[in-house]
Amino acid sequence: MGPHPAVAAIRLAVRRVLHDILIEHSRTAHSRTAHSHTSYGSTTGELTASEGAWHERPPSPLVLVACSGGADSMALASALAFEAPKLAIRAGGITVDHGLQPGSDLRAEEVVLRLRELGLDPVESTAVTVGREGGPEAAARDARYAALDAAAERHGATAVLLGHTRDDQAETVLLGLARGSGIRSLSGMAAVSGGPGAARRYRRPFLQLDRQTARKACMVQSLPVWDDPHNTDPAYTRSRLRHEGLPALEKALGKGVVEALARTARLSRDDADALDAWAGQAEASVRDATGLLVCAKLYALPPAVRRRILRRAAIEAGAPAGSLFARHIEEIDRLITGWRGQGAINLPGRVVAQRQGGRLVIRQG
Amino acid sequence: MGPHPAVAAIRLAVRRVLHDILIEHSRTAHSRTAHSHTSYGSTTGELTASEGAWHERPPSPLVLVACSGGADSMALASALAFEAPKLAIRAGGITVDHGLQPGSDLRAEEVVLRLRELGLDPVESTAVTVGREGGPEAAARDARYAALDAAAERHGATAVLLGHTRDDQAETVLLGLARGSGIRSLSGMAAVSGGPGAARRYRRPFLQLDRQTARKACMVQSLPVWDDPHNTDPAYTRSRLRHEGLPALEKALGKGVVEALARTARLSRDDADALDAWAGQAEASVRDATGLLVCAKLYALPPAVRRRILRRAAIEAGAPAGSLFARHIEEIDRLITGWRGQGAINLPGRVVAQRQGGRLVIRQG
Repeated sequence: MGPHPAVAAIRLAVRRVLHDILIEHSRTAHSRTAHSHTSYGSTTGELTASEGAWHERPPSPLVLVACSGGADSMALASALAFEAPKLAIRAGGITVDHGLQPGSDLRAEEVVLRLRELGLDPVESTAVTVGREGGPEAAARDARYAALDAAAERHGATAVLLGHTRDDQAETVLLGLARGSGIRSLSGMAAVSGGPGAARRYRRPFLQLDRQTARKACMVQSLPVWDDPHNTDPAYTRSRLRHEGLPALEKALGKGVVEALARTARLSRDDADALDAWAGQAEASVRDATGLLVCAKLYALPPAVRRRILRRAAIEAGAPAGSLFARHIEEIDRLITGWRGQGAINLPGRVVAQRQGGRLVIRQG
Repeated sequence: MGPHPAVAAIRLAVRRVLHDILIEHSRTAHSRTAHSHTSYGSTTGELTASEGAWHERPPSPLVLVACSGGADSMALASALAFEAPKLAIRAGGITVDHGLQPGSDLRAEEVVLRLRELGLDPVESTAVTVGREGGPEAAARDARYAALDAAAERHGATAVLLGHTRDDQAETVLLGLARGSGIRSLSGMAAVSGGPGAARRYRRPFLQLDRQTARKACMVQSLPVWDDPHNTDPAYTRSRLRHEGLPALEKALGKGVVEALARTARLSRDDADALDAWAGQAEASVRDATGLLVCAKLYALPPAVRRRILRRAAIEAGAPAGSLFARHIEEIDRLITGWRGQGAINLPGRVVAQRQGGRLVIRQG
């Protein structure tokens, strides 16, 4: 008899990601040691038998799991502990003590203990100080990732696994939708994302797996899980979304909403990437010899591409990306598409946009 | 003392659209009669004084309002009746009797009476038979637009105004989100859209106006409005969304959700248009001399562009667009990006996609 379906599902999800990590790690190690015995024609992310036949194996990579002690990341830790040894990957764990709740240090120690019991090594707890910038949720996230980046560097880890599920992704898409700032904010979390000095450090193996499966996998493996009270605290937007917004949306639209939102994230991400690439290429062609943007050339571009170029130009001139909203870009755009002699436009970061002699001048005032 | 702010808002929204219609109508009439005395440099959609100085005025255009007797379309009818004469536009109205509720014919007659009282002429009621295709809401919509198209042709109308508000738009975006089929389905309703033989027939002046304003405008003008029981019937998805889904989402995410959804629609529409244009241009460059799609060339494209080309190719081969889901396109895409000798893929409409000698062959089986 095989494992419970929920356990099989979490292990498969982790195995796929470990395969990817292994292939990428081998490539890097090979190119470093300049002993390239094999070629890698596969684009499927699966290791083939022939690819294992090296004379000099690169050093065994270390993969860390970021674990809060909650069901998602405990399930992730258990699957990593099970799958890593089969691929000769070293598996460790790290838990971040945000210091936001009384006794959080004791809880962090308990998580360390549980990760060790799963056979992970190294395992450590790291305490952070959460600031205030961007609100409590953003500040906690920034502190957490800084700690994870530092831990990955310290241990020379190849990757850090994060336990975000499809439900988290659906919530992230709705949060982005509430900003109304376009498809980039609808693209949620990436399956692979970077940290400082490591473009593909973070992996989210459960991004297509539902929260219920992770919880079930913990249950059938008798793993105790910790339920963060913040997750049910209606003071937090995400918590309200999880316990009221999404259920109401599911009631109105049907059970497929979470999957639809997650798919929207994937499709939006690819679309946003393609349009950013287009804007990047088009940008050079709409500047004159002195580097100024030529209004007539901007006008000829599709609005979606033009607005991206305007946004890039405003950021380049010093406008903080986070304070630059769709309405700002629309106002700059009207200098191109609805020109009737309007004056200079003030943007965040003391940046000013104005039309002068058929050129668009965007600079800090 | 000017009009109530709600009345001012609905009139301004209609006035802007009538200006656009007038400019477009003049251009068309001029190009038809080949008496082009003026040039149109304005890109703002505003009529300038010089543009009014023709020797031969084109015939006065007719604009119809589609009116159910509900608050949104009654407000629209009242604003059209007020603004049209000032621009020498003839204003008429049409109400569609869907025959879905007892007494709907009497109600249609009442709407006709009210539109006449507003001074609209011509005004007529047209009865339709609602089929079943695509569900009750889609079938009613299809029958309604067919009737409106026919009425517009019959009366030689330049445009038909529709009363959809920003709230309707927000609901439409969420309905599209629930399909999870990408940014085109997030782009909601267009401010301007076409009918058979008339690319810019339908106009939605209230798309950036909230429902509450339309209702208020009816109230202060003492216009009786009819509340369609379908709008509160929980058997309808849109009704559930309006009365439960959206309010819950607003409670979780804040009052700005409706506006954010409407803005998402506008941005997504432009993005989808740009990517469709890109795919249209790229398509020719990825075919070989015999017209077959070359896998290596497809592979080199951004995923967002490649998937659009694959979707177009499947539809061209006979797959019905409405039955072609994101997962179908993903499966075809794996023939390009994850090739490991997989067999032919069956698509809706008996269309088959397979990889043969580095070419992607999509055709009806």
